[in-house]
Amino acid sequence: MNYRMLLYLLCVILLIEAALLLIPLAVALIYGESALPFLITIGILAVISLPGILQKPKNTKIYAKEGFVTVAGSWLLMSAFGALPFVFSGAIPNYIDAFFETCSGFSTTGASILRVIEGLPKGILFWRSFTHWIGGMGVLVFMLAILPQGGHAIYLLRAEVPGPTKGKLVPKLRHTAIILYAIYIALTLTEVIALLIAGLPVYDSLVTSFGTAGTGGFSVMNASIAGYNNPAAEWIIAAFMLIFGINFNLFFLVIVGKWREALKSEEARVYISLALIATAIVCIQTYSMSENLEQCIRTSFFQTASIISTSGFSTTDFNVWPALTKALLILLMFVGSCAGSTAGGVKVSRIIIVFKNTIREIRHMLHPRSVNTVRMDGETVPEETVKSSVNYIALYIAVLIVSVLIVSIDGFSFETNFSGVMACLNNIGPGFDTVGPAGNYADYSIFSKIVLSFDMLFGRLEIMPMIILLSPVTWRKK
Amino acid sequence: MNYRMLLYLLCVILLIEAALLLIPLAVALIYGESALPFLITIGILAVISLPGILQKPKNTKIYAKEGFVTVAGSWLLMSAFGALPFVFSGAIPNYIDAFFETCSGFSTTGASILRVIEGLPKGILFWRSFTHWIGGMGVLVFMLAILPQGGHAIYLLRAEVPGPTKGKLVPKLRHTAIILYAIYIALTLTEVIALLIAGLPVYDSLVTSFGTAGTGGFSVMNASIAGYNNPAAEWIIAAFMLIFGINFNLFFLVIVGKWREALKSEEARVYISLALIATAIVCIQTYSMSENLEQCIRTSFFQTASIISTSGFSTTDFNVWPALTKALLILLMFVGSCAGSTAGGVKVSRIIIVFKNTIREIRHMLHPRSVNTVRMDGETVPEETVKSSVNYIALYIAVLIVSVLIVSIDGFSFETNFSGVMACLNNIGPGFDTVGPAGNYADYSIFSKIVLSFDMLFGRLEIMPMIILLSPVTWRKK
Repeated sequence: MNYRMLLYLLCVILLIEAALLLIPLAVALIYGESALPFLITIGILAVISLPGILQKPKNTKIYAKEGFVTVAGSWLLMSAFGALPFVFSGAIPNYIDAFFETCSGFSTTGASILRVIEGLPKGILFWRSFTHWIGGMGVLVFMLAILPQGGHAIYLLRAEVPGPTKGKLVPKLRHTAIILYAIYIALTLTEVIALLIAGLPVYDSLVTSFGTAGTGGFSVMNASIAGYNNPAAEWIIAAFMLIFGINFNLFFLVIVGKWREALKSEEARVYISLALIATAIVCIQTYSMSENLEQCIRTSFFQTASIISTSGFSTTDFNVWPALTKALLILLMFVGSCAGSTAGGVKVSRIIIVFKNTIREIRHMLHPRSVNTVRMDGETVPEETVKSSVNYIALYIAVLIVSVLIVSIDGFSFETNFSGVMACLNNIGPGFDTVGPAGNYADYSIFSKIVLSFDMLFGRLEIMPMIILLSPVTWRKK
Repeated sequence: MNYRMLLYLLCVILLIEAALLLIPLAVALIYGESALPFLITIGILAVISLPGILQKPKNTKIYAKEGFVTVAGSWLLMSAFGALPFVFSGAIPNYIDAFFETCSGFSTTGASILRVIEGLPKGILFWRSFTHWIGGMGVLVFMLAILPQGGHAIYLLRAEVPGPTKGKLVPKLRHTAIILYAIYIALTLTEVIALLIAGLPVYDSLVTSFGTAGTGGFSVMNASIAGYNNPAAEWIIAAFMLIFGINFNLFFLVIVGKWREALKSEEARVYISLALIATAIVCIQTYSMSENLEQCIRTSFFQTASIISTSGFSTTDFNVWPALTKALLILLMFVGSCAGSTAGGVKVSRIIIVFKNTIREIRHMLHPRSVNTVRMDGETVPEETVKSSVNYIALYIAVLIVSVLIVSIDGFSFETNFSGVMACLNNIGPGFDTVGPAGNYADYSIFSKIVLSFDMLFGRLEIMPMIILLSPVTWRKK
């Protein structure tokens, strides 16, 4: 393990976090609120991280192990320090609650322990939503974009960008990172402008766009997006939630003029089809509860897009929807969006790979001597990718089961615990029953909140980096 | 596909079923009940199957495909015809309900649509419990034991015996089948005698032992085993439930004097440890609801053994237990017992293999050039077995999700639907809420009952044979 480089990278990340905190600080000043919570946090981050970056390590080479540990470690540290402004401002007095809220922010989950949101300082709520935006694309990708990196920085990108993706868009890693962020910023700005046109205030347009872009789901309204009572905004947000769940590689293909290649993507096609089919089913099931057809379609589409993109915004209390609809939403939570997007879940491409692998296994059982490969987008999927996708499902189930078991100690209903863990592990936000859209995670014990916080990071980083960080094998000397 | 041989084997199975029906027929006569329901069913089976076995096919060779189709087809047909006595006797007037009950019997699930059990004809209830006993060891294993087989009959054994097992105990397949049945009969008789000593009537000792041996769970009492109010019987049944969840290969090793080898089995050790740890946790959680310590330990042990062995007998309404206990029981439902036993679930050995595979993957990620194998009982597990175990989990999750989605149409609670599908797919029987130990599956729609019936067969045959039977690929001509 290259400890020197690990320490250096972690300090760089914390310094970046300090810099990012200047933005909510400015917002606080604009609204005439106290800047102290941010100033103190920035001070602490600077004191801790500055000594670590004064001297760049001679050996900047990092490998898979360092990549995983750096990524998992930096997300954990960013959440740990990012929680401080909530505590210092008194918005969330309990540190574990604030840690939960910040993990929820960076991991783009959107699960909240806040019972009342309206009335909290604007700067604090801006930071809360801004963590979604940072977490969506990933702070290490950001670091790669702004800093020239030697060594094997591809391991950082691989460990942070979700799903079985091909890695680099262009030969240079730094350029890849810059392109990703450029697309991200452009799409976010487009949504901000669209929401302004729909009539939302500047502040609300910004924070809502952060929550959409990161597929997070924190809102500054108690009633989430329903609070705006603005159908046009609902359509815009729903559409952008779906868009941010698409693999960013496809946007790059579109930009460089390869429209056809982008349209051929099996993953995007399955993802959009799933969203539309689910919308239709939800619409049929909830029609009798709706005011009119437009409202029914809008709400069904919004809620489906919100869940499959793992955002978690809501325009209705879907906890009171029929059983089939709720089961369907749980399925969508599990599936999630496309690899290489800002969203959570198992990822559509993994589901496709595992599904095709199953078909292949059936063929193999029927014709033991036949040799088949798993193909996607007209290319053979490497066996290594097939194996890791299937293994991922098994690992995912293990984390799910253990988490449900632990949080069950608190005595909530099975529906609360199961949907709550699903909503955290898949970075959705709201679940059903006690943790439904009209509820929150406040009543869970400290211990359960820590478990759920880790589940959010497990989900965002796709389990392995966190397990490697926490595994004794990693830290054992040879 | 060797259609001629497939047809021949299916007819043999149906004739065996006709022969087995003579036993409940005798019971009906002993208790002075009408023998007609059994006589008519036997007649129908004979008329259908006799012409098919008059001429043995010249080509008796079968391969994997025929093996899977024969096994899945025969279980489906046996359930379809085995349901007739329930309908003819009027005990279960609706055919789909009777089909559900018979699938539940043969698959050793024990899920019931009967609201009231006491008062039904003794012969009918004997048949209901007897299906557990037949299904436990498998009727094809029985066929292999009694008939001399040419061809590649090992494919039948592989497709019917659960879990990743080594197949034959002794070089001759027929001898393996005879040994398995001999152990099965001996253990069943031991339990019958123990229950007689504990004071249960002969009839109840027999049917309860059938339910235990097959790890089924049908009881002739409305309140299940609690109805006997007999602590000694509860201890005996709990112990035998655990015993029937152990890999039968181990009993064989013990018989041939290889005690040490049997004791070294990792799977059995993990299985017993899980059962004891879970008992302790349940005991602590439910102590405040108990009369005294003995009753608390007994009930906790009984219910844990009942769930992990996938039997489903109950001595208390565990639906009212605390959330953690219920989550733990759901975990045990998923894990199930040992491969090569009569029980359901994913099987402890698969869990061990997948767990060790995950550890290996972590090692591989940290040290990409290292080569590791998965080892169990001191031997390297073939990569093919590792792959199929991981794939099985993915397939299992797919069946689980689709089933929960479909039965959710009926509008029961998520807890009911999820635990109900888990209880059917893992061959347990009772779930929670509406389908809890004090409830039943009667209120589900016809459509859901068919889905749940298939889930039971999916679980008993470990998914693949059923998928191959239902897959168009199987029936397509080259």
